[in-house]
Amino acid sequence: MRAVDIIRRKRDGLALDDAEIEAFAHGVTAREWPDYQASALLMAICLRGMTPAETDCLTRAMVQSGERLDLSDIPGPKVDKHSTGGVGDKTSLILAPLAATCGVIVPKMSGRSLGHSGGTLDKLEAIPGFRVGLSLAEFRAALRKVGCALIGQTQEIAPADKILYALRDVTATVESIPLITASILSKKIAEGIEALVLDVKCGKGAFMKSPSDARALAEALVRTGNDNGVRTEVFLTAMDQPLGRAVGNALEVREAIATLRGEGPADLTELSVTLAARMVRLGGLVKDAASAEQAVRSALASGRGLEKFRAIVEQQGGDPRTLDDPSRLPRARDQLIVRAERMGYVGDIHAEQVGRATMMLGAGRDRVEDTIDPAVGAIILAHRGEEVRAGDGLVEVHYNADAKLAEALAMLRQAWAIAEEPPTPESIVIESLGT
Amino acid sequence: MRAVDIIRRKRDGLALDDAEIEAFAHGVTAREWPDYQASALLMAICLRGMTPAETDCLTRAMVQSGERLDLSDIPGPKVDKHSTGGVGDKTSLILAPLAATCGVIVPKMSGRSLGHSGGTLDKLEAIPGFRVGLSLAEFRAALRKVGCALIGQTQEIAPADKILYALRDVTATVESIPLITASILSKKIAEGIEALVLDVKCGKGAFMKSPSDARALAEALVRTGNDNGVRTEVFLTAMDQPLGRAVGNALEVREAIATLRGEGPADLTELSVTLAARMVRLGGLVKDAASAEQAVRSALASGRGLEKFRAIVEQQGGDPRTLDDPSRLPRARDQLIVRAERMGYVGDIHAEQVGRATMMLGAGRDRVEDTIDPAVGAIILAHRGEEVRAGDGLVEVHYNADAKLAEALAMLRQAWAIAEEPPTPESIVIESLGT
Repeated sequence: MRAVDIIRRKRDGLALDDAEIEAFAHGVTAREWPDYQASALLMAICLRGMTPAETDCLTRAMVQSGERLDLSDIPGPKVDKHSTGGVGDKTSLILAPLAATCGVIVPKMSGRSLGHSGGTLDKLEAIPGFRVGLSLAEFRAALRKVGCALIGQTQEIAPADKILYALRDVTATVESIPLITASILSKKIAEGIEALVLDVKCGKGAFMKSPSDARALAEALVRTGNDNGVRTEVFLTAMDQPLGRAVGNALEVREAIATLRGEGPADLTELSVTLAARMVRLGGLVKDAASAEQAVRSALASGRGLEKFRAIVEQQGGDPRTLDDPSRLPRARDQLIVRAERMGYVGDIHAEQVGRATMMLGAGRDRVEDTIDPAVGAIILAHRGEEVRAGDGLVEVHYNADAKLAEALAMLRQAWAIAEEPPTPESIVIESLGT
Repeated sequence: MRAVDIIRRKRDGLALDDAEIEAFAHGVTAREWPDYQASALLMAICLRGMTPAETDCLTRAMVQSGERLDLSDIPGPKVDKHSTGGVGDKTSLILAPLAATCGVIVPKMSGRSLGHSGGTLDKLEAIPGFRVGLSLAEFRAALRKVGCALIGQTQEIAPADKILYALRDVTATVESIPLITASILSKKIAEGIEALVLDVKCGKGAFMKSPSDARALAEALVRTGNDNGVRTEVFLTAMDQPLGRAVGNALEVREAIATLRGEGPADLTELSVTLAARMVRLGGLVKDAASAEQAVRSALASGRGLEKFRAIVEQQGGDPRTLDDPSRLPRARDQLIVRAERMGYVGDIHAEQVGRATMMLGAGRDRVEDTIDPAVGAIILAHRGEEVRAGDGLVEVHYNADAKLAEALAMLRQAWAIAEEPPTPESIVIESLGT
């Protein structure tokens, strides 16, 4: 079976059969397919699409390119959550301990920041001493002892995805529902989970700008996850402004801790509780949605969620004193405030621009090899729907170097839409699929 | 200007501007664009197409990736002919000397066989001693002295095309009208010609299977050639059977010589005269089409065309005695005849299968690095429209090795459609465009 014939068939809009898709995934992993053939097929998939059966098969073949963990010797339901990437999204740090408190085993493998999106691993590493690079043996030990571990993707997990993702990033073939579906799910299925809650972001700060694209991705994720033996449910959630008020690694950890203390912003608290409750329910630990939500709210209100986070931090080598004294987190040398130029109501806040601006300050990466400054970032002072007067603070910028400060400030200034009328209030959860 | 942004715009169906297309052609030539980005853009062009302005610009940028020859110091109109590739097509060997006899300067750069299509260079090399690898200085000297030279594409000509063509071949991105147009025309424009006659083949043995695809390509070629300052006209011609009776390098040279003696098959003679006459007319050497045809027919009937071919062979180091005694050409050791199994009329002869069968015997290349056996091939005994009885010969196979003989014979046997009714007679020239 020649690569060029497989590419030709997809170019002509035909559905590939299992053998062809497996030849592709295997060929890429074994480095038998040169990158130029892989990228030609990726572009053909982008433009011609894939049937549900093809997407299923690609997902399976990418799982099989590496190991699929077997966590059946660890008691309890294994459930994970994944988000398609947003700005200020620190829910993983909150919902993982909350779900684990309720009895869910959370074997969470996360990614790093790229482009305007943050990454859970970078946030965790803002905690002094925290190790995200556990071996698989350490990972299992942590799950058994604490019920949750937060680590990076190991070499064994879906190596085909690692190669293809790097290639997609430089060939404009990221934006494809079948490819996104296979990429997300192959990694999650390989983790050894039974159920998965997905948070598909929708809006200006999200990968999926329109609700219809977000819904199509959500449907593909639900179908493909379930077809591959993982109970999968999806929430479409709004990314019309950064989630919570903090953007930037140490600032987000601080906000996550505050949220676990019951002192977090409403949107972040609501979304974290909603996602954690769905994990608990999908894990089969309660009889209905109301009980699941009650269990999670109780974990939060009682402080047991925060104590679980402390146990995770300790297990992974982090300094637990950070939880009691967030001033131990890295702090930027300088702050300044961007102020409103006129009065009005804050409309949408262009989250992608906020993400890019903080990336410029060092909070994120433009390229994989860039380093992160954990201390820098931004605190949103005026959220969507709030009324401001000229001179009121919109955002507090935390920075260490000022090489790109002016550019970042200009970008932040543009991110706020101020209107005479207040915007229509929007709920953070737009809808849920798969239930 | 980042490659990934250019790829994204084409992926999204937008027209690229001149700066973007030039960045691509230059980036590929300078090896600044990695192959995987080039192939992703090629696939996006295949599926999204290009506007006339984009095709023009790509053609121009590919010309500018190398040298554009200036032949203005050589007196006479410089006109070339190019065919999109067929089976048994040895017209270049006939029309080049005929047009040169009539005063046209023919600076002909040709290609080699690949896949089921033959290549003029391989045919010429069947003549003992013939050198197709002239330097540019030798090329100019030959044009000045003989009025025609038949050589391979030099390194200086459209290097971007060389790189892109190799990539398209292995990424299923050959079949794209803008890419074919830019590839053909960039090489021809760089030759320094003023006018160009194109032969777009159409039918089972051709690259373009349907008349509508062939016509679309023809229109793009006429428009882009003229836009780039080369008077361009196109003939759509039938490839419903191999052209003439000989397929295979030495066998085709023999048939070309016979044709220059006035003893060639009707279809080959007609097409060669038609194309040569158009070259003469486009060169402005005569006042109308009738005079052009008369000039070419006279060059043929008088034997001056054959003498011009002799001069070309001598100039390029070939043995001119071959023209008087074709038995000096390489000959295969064995022959056998494939016979009709039942009576009827010969319909279409699947030229691509005939081409593939002779390729298997060694007449062509499956891969660029394969070597050619100049002696092997096939002589068509029963042409389209001829009546045969069971046992009559359909094709005479000339072979040296019999490793793939059985497979080649089976393929040849399937290439002949024998029907109870004679097929509708078809003219070799379907239509002409650009006049």
